[in-house]
Amino acid sequence: MEKEKKFKPSKELPLGFVDRQDKELLTRDFIISNIKEVMIKYGFQYLETPSFEYTESIGKYLPDTDRPDQGVFSFKDEKNWLSLRYDLTAPLARYVAKNYLEIPKPFKRYQLGTVWRNEKPGPGRFREFLQFDADYVGTQNLQADAELCILISEILEKCGLSKNDYTVKISSRKFTEELFKELKIQSSEQSLTILRALDKIDRLGWTEVKKLLGKERKDSSGDITKGANLDEKQIATIEKRIKDVKPTSDDVLEILRLFEAYNFTNYKYDPSVIRGLEYYTGPIFEVNLNFEVKNSKDKVIEFGSIGGGGRYDNLVNNFGNLDCPATGISIGIDRLVYALMQKKEFNIKSIRPVVICVFEKEKIKDYVDILKKLRDKNISSEIYPGEGNLKKQMQYANKIGSPAVILYGEDEIKSGKAILRDLSSGKETATEIDNLFNEIKKIL
Amino acid sequence: MEKEKKFKPSKELPLGFVDRQDKELLTRDFIISNIKEVMIKYGFQYLETPSFEYTESIGKYLPDTDRPDQGVFSFKDEKNWLSLRYDLTAPLARYVAKNYLEIPKPFKRYQLGTVWRNEKPGPGRFREFLQFDADYVGTQNLQADAELCILISEILEKCGLSKNDYTVKISSRKFTEELFKELKIQSSEQSLTILRALDKIDRLGWTEVKKLLGKERKDSSGDITKGANLDEKQIATIEKRIKDVKPTSDDVLEILRLFEAYNFTNYKYDPSVIRGLEYYTGPIFEVNLNFEVKNSKDKVIEFGSIGGGGRYDNLVNNFGNLDCPATGISIGIDRLVYALMQKKEFNIKSIRPVVICVFEKEKIKDYVDILKKLRDKNISSEIYPGEGNLKKQMQYANKIGSPAVILYGEDEIKSGKAILRDLSSGKETATEIDNLFNEIKKIL
Repeated sequence: MEKEKKFKPSKELPLGFVDRQDKELLTRDFIISNIKEVMIKYGFQYLETPSFEYTESIGKYLPDTDRPDQGVFSFKDEKNWLSLRYDLTAPLARYVAKNYLEIPKPFKRYQLGTVWRNEKPGPGRFREFLQFDADYVGTQNLQADAELCILISEILEKCGLSKNDYTVKISSRKFTEELFKELKIQSSEQSLTILRALDKIDRLGWTEVKKLLGKERKDSSGDITKGANLDEKQIATIEKRIKDVKPTSDDVLEILRLFEAYNFTNYKYDPSVIRGLEYYTGPIFEVNLNFEVKNSKDKVIEFGSIGGGGRYDNLVNNFGNLDCPATGISIGIDRLVYALMQKKEFNIKSIRPVVICVFEKEKIKDYVDILKKLRDKNISSEIYPGEGNLKKQMQYANKIGSPAVILYGEDEIKSGKAILRDLSSGKETATEIDNLFNEIKKIL
Repeated sequence: MEKEKKFKPSKELPLGFVDRQDKELLTRDFIISNIKEVMIKYGFQYLETPSFEYTESIGKYLPDTDRPDQGVFSFKDEKNWLSLRYDLTAPLARYVAKNYLEIPKPFKRYQLGTVWRNEKPGPGRFREFLQFDADYVGTQNLQADAELCILISEILEKCGLSKNDYTVKISSRKFTEELFKELKIQSSEQSLTILRALDKIDRLGWTEVKKLLGKERKDSSGDITKGANLDEKQIATIEKRIKDVKPTSDDVLEILRLFEAYNFTNYKYDPSVIRGLEYYTGPIFEVNLNFEVKNSKDKVIEFGSIGGGGRYDNLVNNFGNLDCPATGISIGIDRLVYALMQKKEFNIKSIRPVVICVFEKEKIKDYVDILKKLRDKNISSEIYPGEGNLKKQMQYANKIGSPAVILYGEDEIKSGKAILRDLSSGKETATEIDNLFNEIKKIL
């Protein structure tokens, strides 16, 4: 008898992380294969940067004190700070800077990869998620921006969404720049506070956003967020401009002309589209789903965007004197999976094996022969992999969702015919081993 | 003029991390799609655990001092230590413990995922790599172990390897257990030192391993590694047993009988197969490639195994009183990709787009019409996405490896015929827009 109590580690996952099952992963695979097909058709190159970068290379999050800023997962590695990427754009800028002389210009690449955010996890808020990014690097040509919106649309429709199911919203940082000029706002800190406030219109509504544009906002918990300190007249101007339905900035107008050439209509000009990130310099996009999405408690939720992007003409330039305008778009794959799985029309089934029951272990060669014949015909199948009587084997087959079991006991071996039991109807068929394949096909 | 010198972040990657290009990624996709097909056929369920786990849940690496042991990447998260997984087996054990009541028993799952090791990086030694794992959980049936070897073999052959290209080596921890009994070794520390020494036979050869079994070994740099302190007679016994060509342990004998039933012959019994991990309790496997693999300097290297595994009957039990024998196998996908890309017979080509050159920006609608026709036929194609004259456009098309360009200038628009230039032969063909598709098909 041991004296010390044995240490039992936690069986739980840290908050913000999840295990993902069959059906969700198959849906994801389906989306990814559609993405890859569209990317090849559109002429993009496949690239993968690693999970880690030097913290300094992916910006902002520099170790000014002991540890880098919150928001990213960072490690001190002998001399340097490393961080897990928080998006795929910052690593792309690093890649382009590193390989500036070798890459074609323009450079069109796509990437699929996990990104991490070290944020306070909440319901539906994860600290790890899969992203898809497509970018055009080294071109100011707005056709790049137009194509990004069009290719996202093609991906979503390939995944089974109709034109009513989604909208690509478009605006431009040029619009807010002009607005700031009109309002005589010069401090970049104040500009950023305004952008962040406007980015919350969808979530908080105008009444609350106006407080954030003014002095301060107190939320339901009593916490106070400092506002942008605009006066009432300035706030009124912003509201008026944001509610304009006609675009005024040249870049958006040009993109709309291109949409027309492509006969692409599934977009909406919406100056309330802001995008949180600071590095955007021109057109910005947001991809929204229009159908009902429910949470795990079966309550319809404000699902928001599944992705977006925009032009970031100065990001690569941070690495040195590299003139490299660029534009890109991202899709949050996990969010898209979540929404897609709720569409009635969409139903991916996971394939479960036919189970060959084991009556006598010494007869294993007979069972293996059946197994090999089925697998040669590409039938998902297995010999019961555990150790139990027939009752246990049937329980197992039902538990894994097997479509059918094969019974091949002493009597059947003598007669040369196996029994195939359809597990959904309960129907049994006796048939020659060589014919099992055909009978199974009827069930599947 | 700015006074402060602008900070320029590093363009480099931390050691042990790499960017991966088109061809490598396509090879990887090819392997992964073969894996998934085989996994469905063999009746495995698809599962994904997250990158992070509580450090205590994935074992060994507990934060006994300030930070967890080296070897894993770990963070302190408010109260708890989190670690990036270093394999897919430890997270599976946690998953099984957490979902013990819900999962079928046996539970067959496969996973594809990145794992991280915070080790000193060296040439060809990465700190991040992609792994494939297949496991049977909740069964002592050695058919599970046999099937693992067979399914790996099917995956490799599906990827294009012949029977001569690889071997599945098999041994058992029961063999070393018996050996230790014979040698009267009782300390688990000494046993582990012996296992680790034997695990190095491939790399160091017998002469050096004998030193590690004895008092100590001095390597070429002068560093001294403490040995297992066995006497000469004990070492001689070990050498004799390891060189035995006939298996003695029951579990291996049973698996070999199963191999025969499956008519699987591409294995080798090899008691020098040890596997570094401590948690194995029974049969162990190793998958070796037999063809020549070269390093980046075109020198043939000792490539070693691309994967392996074994039975770990007590791992799940660590989480509490859960009787859950299990066995599994892993493949290092990146290593397999590296080796596969060197096979002459194996050549995955990346698809590059046909480039439609732009003569007059105002005619964009004409170019878009051509583009849409080609893409509707699923031809990888693009309108030149940059901003340059024809010379620049041709340079771009050549740089990206485009198979052909389409020239449609003022004269061509008048005549209604575009010129298709084959970029490998230089041959030009004038053809109607609606016929471009057929002409391109001839080139591809």
